[in-house]
Amino acid sequence: MHGLPLQVSTVIIPTGATEQHGPHLPLGVDAMLSRAIAAEVARQVGALVAPEFSYGYKSQPRSGGGNHRLGTTSLGAAALTGMIDDVVSSFIDQGACNVIVLNGHFENYQFLYEGLDNAVARAGRQGSGSRGVLMSYWDFVDEHTLAQVFPDGFLGWDIEHGGVLETSLMLLLHPELVDMDRVVDHPPAVLTPYDIFPEGPGAHPRQRASFHRWIAC
Amino acid sequence: MHGLPLQVSTVIIPTGATEQHGPHLPLGVDAMLSRAIAAEVARQVGALVAPEFSYGYKSQPRSGGGNHRLGTTSLGAAALTGMIDDVVSSFIDQGACNVIVLNGHFENYQFLYEGLDNAVARAGRQGSGSRGVLMSYWDFVDEHTLAQVFPDGFLGWDIEHGGVLETSLMLLLHPELVDMDRVVDHPPAVLTPYDIFPEGPGAHPRQRASFHRWIAC
Amino acid sequence: MHGLPLQVSTVIIPTGATEQHGPHLPLGVDAMLSRAIAAEVARQVGALVAPEFSYGYKSQPRSGGGNHRLGTTSLGAAALTGMIDDVVSSFIDQGACNVIVLNGHFENYQFLYEGLDNAVARAGRQGSGSRGVLMSYWDFVDEHTLAQVFPDGFLGWDIEHGGVLETSLMLLLHPELVDMDRVVDHPPAVLTPYDIFPEGPGAHPRQRASFHRWIAC
Amino acid sequence: MHGLPLQVSTVIIPTGATEQHGPHLPLGVDAMLSRAIAAEVARQVGALVAPEFSYGYKSQPRSGGGNHRLGTTSLGAAALTGMIDDVVSSFIDQGACNVIVLNGHFENYQFLYEGLDNAVARAGRQGSGSRGVLMSYWDFVDEHTLAQVFPDGFLGWDIEHGGVLETSLMLLLHPELVDMDRVVDHPPAVLTPYDIFPEGPGAHPRQRASFHRWIAC
Amino acid sequence: MHGLPLQVSTVIIPTGATEQHGPHLPLGVDAMLSRAIAAEVARQVGALVAPEFSYGYKSQPRSGGGNHRLGTTSLGAAALTGMIDDVVSSFIDQGACNVIVLNGHFENYQFLYEGLDNAVARAGRQGSGSRGVLMSYWDFVDEHTLAQVFPDGFLGWDIEHGGVLETSLMLLLHPELVDMDRVVDHPPAVLTPYDIFPEGPGAHPRQRASFHRWIAC
Amino acid sequence: MHGLPLQVSTVIIPTGATEQHGPHLPLGVDAMLSRAIAAEVARQVGALVAPEFSYGYKSQPRSGGGNHRLGTTSLGAAALTGMIDDVVSSFIDQGACNVIVLNGHFENYQFLYEGLDNAVARAGRQGSGSRGVLMSYWDFVDEHTLAQVFPDGFLGWDIEHGGVLETSLMLLLHPELVDMDRVVDHPPAVLTPYDIFPEGPGAHPRQRASFHRWIAC
Repeated sequence: MHGLPLQVSTVIIPTGATEQHGPHLPLGVDAMLSRAIAAEVARQVGALVAPEFSYGYKSQPRSGGGNHRLGTTSLGAAALTGMIDDVVSSFIDQGACNVIVLNGHFENYQFLYEGLDNAVARAGRQGSGSRGVLMSYWDFVDEHTLAQVFPDGFLGWDIEHGGVLETSLMLLLHPELVDMDRVVDHPPAVLTPYDIFPEGPGAHPRQRASFHRWIAC
Repeated sequence: MHGLPLQVSTVIIPTGATEQHGPHLPLGVDAMLSRAIAAEVARQVGALVAPEFSYGYKSQPRSGGGNHRLGTTSLGAAALTGMIDDVVSSFIDQGACNVIVLNGHFENYQFLYEGLDNAVARAGRQGSGSRGVLMSYWDFVDEHTLAQVFPDGFLGWDIEHGGVLETSLMLLLHPELVDMDRVVDHPPAVLTPYDIFPEGPGAHPRQRASFHRWIAC
Repeated sequence: MHGLPLQVSTVIIPTGATEQHGPHLPLGVDAMLSRAIAAEVARQVGALVAPEFSYGYKSQPRSGGGNHRLGTTSLGAAALTGMIDDVVSSFIDQGACNVIVLNGHFENYQFLYEGLDNAVARAGRQGSGSRGVLMSYWDFVDEHTLAQVFPDGFLGWDIEHGGVLETSLMLLLHPELVDMDRVVDHPPAVLTPYDIFPEGPGAHPRQRASFHRWIAC
Repeated sequence: MHGLPLQVSTVIIPTGATEQHGPHLPLGVDAMLSRAIAAEVARQVGALVAPEFSYGYKSQPRSGGGNHRLGTTSLGAAALTGMIDDVVSSFIDQGACNVIVLNGHFENYQFLYEGLDNAVARAGRQGSGSRGVLMSYWDFVDEHTLAQVFPDGFLGWDIEHGGVLETSLMLLLHPELVDMDRVVDHPPAVLTPYDIFPEGPGAHPRQRASFHRWIAC
Repeated sequence: MHGLPLQVSTVIIPTGATEQHGPHLPLGVDAMLSRAIAAEVARQVGALVAPEFSYGYKSQPRSGGGNHRLGTTSLGAAALTGMIDDVVSSFIDQGACNVIVLNGHFENYQFLYEGLDNAVARAGRQGSGSRGVLMSYWDFVDEHTLAQVFPDGFLGWDIEHGGVLETSLMLLLHPELVDMDRVVDHPPAVLTPYDIFPEGPGAHPRQRASFHRWIAC
Repeated sequence: MHGLPLQVSTVIIPTGATEQHGPHLPLGVDAMLSRAIAAEVARQVGALVAPEFSYGYKSQPRSGGGNHRLGTTSLGAAALTGMIDDVVSSFIDQGACNVIVLNGHFENYQFLYEGLDNAVARAGRQGSGSRGVLMSYWDFVDEHTLAQVFPDGFLGWDIEHGGVLETSLMLLLHPELVDMDRVVDHPPAVLTPYDIFPEGPGAHPRQRASFHRWIAC
């Protein structure tokens, strides 16, 4: 019934989080980066960029975060899954052929998967040929780049939360939002191979510094 | 356990929608206006502004919209209610005393009510003294202003969707996003006192013009 | 598969609430009025009237009520939305062409909208041509009637909860359930343009008088 | 915070269904019977009777019904469970010490159980001492009565749907709603010990006769 | 798209519970019995047996159980209903023509009904001809068997929880898991015709004995 | 109120899936391995092992699986999350101090996280001191073992689905269920760094071989 303008058949939905990223970065890093990357890709391929998801799933210690940190403000599974399902369904109803979800917050992935899978499957059962794609931007950083950025060896994405790559990207895209005076130089985080509930606030001292940055967002 | 910085005890959450507002306005008007008003209020009273809700409840003909219009991209009740519940709960957990939800999209109100009521009630049963407030910004436009803006008489908020006030506010706050060459001057809409399902797309010709504005948002 | 009797293709579902309406009225006013109006309309147009919804969404101070008042017994959003969705779907499955939801409780409207929209849309995706209509009875009170009933000017539906119109309609339809000795004559309520959570019970003294009227219902 | 009038600490919620009961009975039999029994019990013990639940869970062949029969209009599990949970929670919030759910539709029982259990457990975890009771009225028909009504032996409640006992009770309580000219005398139903999905409409010919009785309800 | 091997068109899903069955039986009796019966039926008719459901709905005093007993570990309605819906839908997607749910825990029945009904109805609306069947194994014990096992008369399935028949079946199928030294010989249970919430733990002394049997399962 | 036997304060819940693992392995590999590892750990530390979860979240191509493969039978997010929430809550109610969820199916992790987090947080708000732990068994395979098993270098867990480690563990624990004649020797899978919806069945030819193994489980 509806149709996108003829020249546009692809929508990109950037997703992020509201989450501490150390004292030098604003809370919205994940959404800012996925939005910026989406905008550049959209410019090159002629796609539309949807308003980004500013809130994401609970930040987790195993991927370098922690939901107890001040400023980190999260959604549960049902809200995030329902949100992506509704938004994707709405774009498919409008005639989008390809709905790309570009993720910028590690913990979102599986919940975006559920919502996107449900929306595309439901539409498909009613005759739609629309497709969905889900990806996280860091999965497209190639070996060469990693070798340049980490000459001593790349230690894994899980400890890169608020780390060298996110800081570099922010310096490139939003330098005015990075406070280099407050960068903390510490050895790589040692993350546990399990999660404990309730999350141990003792292990992760609260870092209030970046909280006032909201207004600036 | 957690606490906001001593000088900050109030968080304002602006909510909007992704919705057609005529050919001269971008889709994000509702979120832009509530965010701007929240930012100014926050500046005056020393509050924090949370990332805005860019998507809202289904746009309805009775309030001058219509969910079938191209570009209008909506959430259902469960996702919107769950989202506000989770975000408000998260702020209360962090120690916010007052959580203000500042609404900029008419159709959102009751679903925000449900989520905010549930979040505050649940926290209250566990000993929290945090309070919530829900309001739409247009309910604070006073008689004097209305008389000035509408010298021939104000006809009601329901027909003001994409109308004189929203356009005026956008010209004040984001003039670069208003395309005055494309303003349509038509008599006041005549809205029905009922809703029909499925919404009649015939009655509301699709207006594609503002769709490409997303990227600019 | 199923079909209504040939001469009947329209079902009207009256919805109300269980809610304080002042000391002189029973708790079931909203359901009684919508049921009576539905019955009269059905008689004229040859429709069926479904059993009414006796419980409604949380009563709110902004529309003259308040969920804390004794006797007020409410549903949350999910239950009310699910209920109307299921009942409407069931009527569509039976072959009803038109399902009219006639609302008698202000706070119900948006949740009925969600359930009715979902039910009709789901049926439509499976080939049904059934339609839904949602309306509140007071939206059909015309200017002439308002001018007669309120010679000094009509102040708005929001302060009419348990007021002149509902009392008049009850006197017309169920005079034996109105206790005119207990009518309170007070100036028009001054309602706030916002909602506060938790609802302030101090501002709204509990009125126990009409509680015993349940049995009479 | 709230409290029922001192002399009232017990609320009875009658539940029923909208369901075919043969050509001689109205669709609302289950709600009418549980409401009448609740009213009489309440009169004797000084309890309040809440508005009855007019809609119930899907009618099933194994208990003599069938959801495909014309007029049978049902709720799914989530709506019924949510409804009883919300209403019971609301009464407990108001100070009811005992909330009795008096069931009149066999298929409702387990879903009422879930909602009542959840509501009482949640209240209990917050310090409430309120109790719930769930019962179906036919479980209190004693052996003596059964022997009198069925001198040739009682064959079980499952085949009593729209049968001798319900008809007798309706003749006692609402004789004007029983059309004895249309009573069908057939041998006891032979019910299968299993359920088949989708329900076999061929096996259960549609009986349209009582459909027009809604208006009379 | 998918299809079961040509020679297999029927899948049987056994369901049980994790529930005390007296000091002489393991907690998994209900799942063990339905699995064993399913396996034997499948062998005879050429069906597949799906992994059994080891957890079931809340154990209830009215059917001889009680959710407060140590070791009894239950699901709520939504999880059980969602689980059977998902698993049945998954088998229908793979091409199963007949999905049989063989129940071994009384309290499961109505929740399995909801999930199976929803899954088959949804598939049917999309053109599937797959059917579902729901049954509890004890409904197929014939009169002759009952007369043999209970020469003094069968008193009803509700008091047979952990009783003569379940013990006999376990002795036949898993004798190594029955501890006959711990069998308690007591008169038939007298069950109330109603449920009370919260369940009275005083009335049902905790029986810890069989708790350690989990590991053996 | 309840308490585990004094000597037992820890419960381990193994979780798996029903999923193709190549032609040589049964569908239940994930549950079998997590159950076996849980049993051995429980033996050493004196814990109880709960019945395993035999069904898991949708199998995904990015981790070497695919929900379209014959035999793969999956749960959606809500059912799996609700199930773990209910089971963990039930164990905490019984007095378990530590509830360990030992995962054996990659795609389960985030949904188990949500359910376990919700259950422990809810209990904690009511005064419980119970803790939860979530882990996947392969995160505890150390570097030394990997170096031994993969002398040419370990290529990552994502391509290990049905691979060398799972086959080795099955040969150790359930050799009778491994059909070494049907092992397929192919080069390491090349997995895409994104997910596509609907999943491409063309890319993953259906492998029917292990379907008949259910009965053997």
